[in-house]
Amino acid sequence: MNRRTFNTKLSKAIGGVALVSNIPLACAFEASENKKSLGIALVGLGTYSTYELAPSLLETKHCHLAGIVTGTPEKEKIWGEKYKIPKENIYNYNTFDSIINNDSIDIIYVVLPNAMHADFCIRAAKAGKHVICEKPMAVSVAECQAIIDACAKADVKLSVGYRLHSEPHTQEIQRIVKEKEFGKINFVTAEAGYPSYGNPDPNQWRLKKALSGGGALMNMGVYAIQGAIYGAGELPISVTAQEFSTKPDYFNDTDETITAQFEFPSGAVGSIFTSHNAKADRLYASCDKGWYELDTAYTYGPLHGRTSSGSEITFPHKRQQALQMDDFALHITQGTPNKVPGSMGLRDLKIVEAIYQSIAQGGKKITMNL
Amino acid sequence: MNRRTFNTKLSKAIGGVALVSNIPLACAFEASENKKSLGIALVGLGTYSTYELAPSLLETKHCHLAGIVTGTPEKEKIWGEKYKIPKENIYNYNTFDSIINNDSIDIIYVVLPNAMHADFCIRAAKAGKHVICEKPMAVSVAECQAIIDACAKADVKLSVGYRLHSEPHTQEIQRIVKEKEFGKINFVTAEAGYPSYGNPDPNQWRLKKALSGGGALMNMGVYAIQGAIYGAGELPISVTAQEFSTKPDYFNDTDETITAQFEFPSGAVGSIFTSHNAKADRLYASCDKGWYELDTAYTYGPLHGRTSSGSEITFPHKRQQALQMDDFALHITQGTPNKVPGSMGLRDLKIVEAIYQSIAQGGKKITMNL
Repeated sequence: MNRRTFNTKLSKAIGGVALVSNIPLACAFEASENKKSLGIALVGLGTYSTYELAPSLLETKHCHLAGIVTGTPEKEKIWGEKYKIPKENIYNYNTFDSIINNDSIDIIYVVLPNAMHADFCIRAAKAGKHVICEKPMAVSVAECQAIIDACAKADVKLSVGYRLHSEPHTQEIQRIVKEKEFGKINFVTAEAGYPSYGNPDPNQWRLKKALSGGGALMNMGVYAIQGAIYGAGELPISVTAQEFSTKPDYFNDTDETITAQFEFPSGAVGSIFTSHNAKADRLYASCDKGWYELDTAYTYGPLHGRTSSGSEITFPHKRQQALQMDDFALHITQGTPNKVPGSMGLRDLKIVEAIYQSIAQGGKKITMNL
Repeated sequence: MNRRTFNTKLSKAIGGVALVSNIPLACAFEASENKKSLGIALVGLGTYSTYELAPSLLETKHCHLAGIVTGTPEKEKIWGEKYKIPKENIYNYNTFDSIINNDSIDIIYVVLPNAMHADFCIRAAKAGKHVICEKPMAVSVAECQAIIDACAKADVKLSVGYRLHSEPHTQEIQRIVKEKEFGKINFVTAEAGYPSYGNPDPNQWRLKKALSGGGALMNMGVYAIQGAIYGAGELPISVTAQEFSTKPDYFNDTDETITAQFEFPSGAVGSIFTSHNAKADRLYASCDKGWYELDTAYTYGPLHGRTSSGSEITFPHKRQQALQMDDFALHITQGTPNKVPGSMGLRDLKIVEAIYQSIAQGGKKITMNL
């Protein structure tokens, strides 16, 4: 939200209070708070927007679904009616750039195929909107940098759709790691994948390299990378990697199964696994004084964890994407930390590129300076 | 047991029935059955013999602790009294070969440091005794073959101390795999290790290559290899491997942490992890129609498993080593299958050698013909 938009919203909020001056003060204050809710436009109305983001935006407190951008005319009608989106907040890919003139849109969430992230994130920034870019941030380090630069130039905030940084089980792991509750961490393993029978469409964009930039590694692999990093509490300095295919006819354009091993500065070792043909969903670390685990670790929840002290890690289930988008809205309106800055998305693409490089060189160790 | 020994035992058993002819037939029959119990001599009275094998031999039905071989005179007295072992069944390493003349010893279980397995197994075979060789079978493929040859020449049975083949949770996994209960197997991961704080003696033989032949890979690594194989239901055809050290000062003579990846003929992928500085104890497989898991998978029990069908894999706890030794005794006396033949131990050393070879060649893929 630029200053102009924010001031407009503020004046609307104040006006709102005036109009409802006959209701108790607490409610009036609540109404005022609600007015600070930021408007989000979803760009790309595929599965993730339909079944995760839009329902989550019914639960958010600090942002709401204000607009959509879609290339499918039928979706304009369906979404417009279902979520009561005014016609002027509905865009297609030709009209998208005129969103610059729409004050009711504060944040643009780009949920398109990976290869389209950079283009739309940069255009969103140019339109003066804050940006959430779905993971992986882009298909190359260079594209990630271009997004970061565009957002900096436009003075808008940028986040990547790593929902788990707002998720309480994951945050509890981050606390355990930060406080070194089980002493020095020696080994962390992160496995993230789903089987092809769980998503059997051979024409899905994720299987086409031109749209996805890569297969399992670009999809669930970045969660495994993320898990290894927040499970270890530090950034890897080297990686070796291997690629496999259990179903080569089906996965003929993108990587299906990848294993990789990290070295961390402390000496800790990381092992990750990702696949588009195996269910895998775990984070585990062994330390000098015990261990901790999330299993499941990367699903939409509820996650579940346990530790060597015998305790279970359980929290009431909330939609992760609601928590994520609210956190980003608060970052914008209240200056709370950006839990997933663009630099984190770029960092992960550096690791992705190093993994592909190691595979191309027969598993050679690639050093990384992150 | 050679024919002579067996006939001697049989005549003793028949005599036993005659001597107790005034007791009910069922009891007499039981006494007769008990007489068929084979006598086991443990060679090497370290931790594993002391806390696992000897207590297990109090629970076995088809074999019993009949003798010991130790280089520590105090242990002769302690064990002799505790387990009521007659003096003539107590040997040291100088008198060991005279065990050939002792008809009360049918099986010799070699529980010495890995580098001594071949020597003592071959001498046990030459003494006409059946042999159980603790895992890993030896420190090289060549030594494994020498043990197999010696046992074949002496016409004695040979088994390796892989206790889990007699363990019900593991057997349930083997059944699931054999019956392809969840369809084609695509990915199996096996992690087996324990932390150095769990066994902190820097002078232990496992850390000295001259005695152990290798570190984590030779110790818990063979369990990870085993898990990957019975978890996948087939033998790997290639391996890539990586070695790491999180504690290089402590692990200065043997490998501490190793990761390796297998390709199987079906296309399935295997990933193993082993360490002497990380607790890891899991077997997991993802298939076309679901998944199965053991966690824990390799401890002395109780193990625990679950599957994607929602079922838990649980069985009453029994000492795995008791089940293992009874299975081998029944193989000898009743011709039941040898669940862990010497060829399996040799096969695993072939994989161990391929893993070390891959590491030495910077993670190069090594093909295997098992």
